[in-house]
Amino acid sequence: MAQTPATYAIILAAGASARFGGNEPKQFLPLAGRPLVAHAIQAFEDAPSIREIVLVVPAASRASATDNILLEYQFEKVSRVVSGGATRAESTRNGLESVPAKAELIAVHDGARPTVSPSDIERVIQAAARDGAAILAEPINDTLKRVSDNCVVETVDRNGLYAAQTPQVFRAELIRRAHDLGRSSVTDDAQAVEALGVQVTVVEANYANIKVTRPEDFALAESILISRKERV
Amino acid sequence: MAQTPATYAIILAAGASARFGGNEPKQFLPLAGRPLVAHAIQAFEDAPSIREIVLVVPAASRASATDNILLEYQFEKVSRVVSGGATRAESTRNGLESVPAKAELIAVHDGARPTVSPSDIERVIQAAARDGAAILAEPINDTLKRVSDNCVVETVDRNGLYAAQTPQVFRAELIRRAHDLGRSSVTDDAQAVEALGVQVTVVEANYANIKVTRPEDFALAESILISRKERV
Repeated sequence: MAQTPATYAIILAAGASARFGGNEPKQFLPLAGRPLVAHAIQAFEDAPSIREIVLVVPAASRASATDNILLEYQFEKVSRVVSGGATRAESTRNGLESVPAKAELIAVHDGARPTVSPSDIERVIQAAARDGAAILAEPINDTLKRVSDNCVVETVDRNGLYAAQTPQVFRAELIRRAHDLGRSSVTDDAQAVEALGVQVTVVEANYANIKVTRPEDFALAESILISRKERV
Repeated sequence: MAQTPATYAIILAAGASARFGGNEPKQFLPLAGRPLVAHAIQAFEDAPSIREIVLVVPAASRASATDNILLEYQFEKVSRVVSGGATRAESTRNGLESVPAKAELIAVHDGARPTVSPSDIERVIQAAARDGAAILAEPINDTLKRVSDNCVVETVDRNGLYAAQTPQVFRAELIRRAHDLGRSSVTDDAQAVEALGVQVTVVEANYANIKVTRPEDFALAESILISRKERV
């Protein structure tokens, strides 16, 4: 098997948590004894193929994030902490500018996904090393409804539907080219790469990889992390 | 406010757990000290508007389910235990036949959703009492991909998309009429009712209401139930 290409990660933790409420952005709130985003960082620290990590945080929190998270937890791979922008796409672009030109693969991860597993990260990297672009995802098991004014408009065919997660891993030139086009309507990086006409491989997650969105998700993420520790 | 109509629940626990593996159907496996389905039954026991519960189990497990679950946990509202059919629709029809004719509202719940909360059950019943048909659901926060041969075919517009959950609550004549039509392609009861041209109201879940599908979901459901108890 070929050696894994030089792989860099961008962890996006620049959101203002508008949907979550509270003063501090959710990614810095404590979860199972650490700031939420520290769990995401840890998973990338533990994924052997990751060489370096660029952490993107709100401009206002940059100094405190560096102090509180990086000094306290001594992550070895976090090489830069950069300020995010007004949108997710802008934050990703700021992260991309800090990834060295020698990077061959770039993994983008949503810092609000603290339960991602190092083994799933590795599987997406291997798929991207082979195919150029790959994302973690899970099949939709629920029936989907399109809703308007609190009423069902239609039942959507769920056949072949997956919920996209992160990390999403791309050959560096693909993700850079996709973001240079600067489409702001995309909701994930894969969509920007798809728009280039590039085929994106789907890797099914083996472990729960929830996005912390509602306050109850916090307890859920904590429970997942604790139950994994108990099983080790 | 008007009195709540006579409301009966059908809890579907007749699946063979083909996706789950193992010998015993997942709904009877222990979860936080009780069989999985007992948690779903408990939530309906605790929902004040529910008058009686019809439990649908695999034909082969009917005797043991009655012994192990009903005798042990002394549920007061479970009035009948009936055998399921080969499909979800058939199991629902068997349940409907056991619901007395005096029922005004019928709630159908998937027994593989053990973390449903009594307060969310009540909210769906109130909506159905007002509007005739209502389902519990949660908005899709993830980007959706249509996937074929492990590759992304397209990114699906997630605007207004919800994952349908259960309970789904209907005026009795609506759900009976929908099932008399006998469409086998529907993936939930609401879809059969939608096919009648009836408007279905969507109630957003306040609490996690996961469907136990993969083995890891078991630990997840257990964690949710335990963390709720700790917060009481």
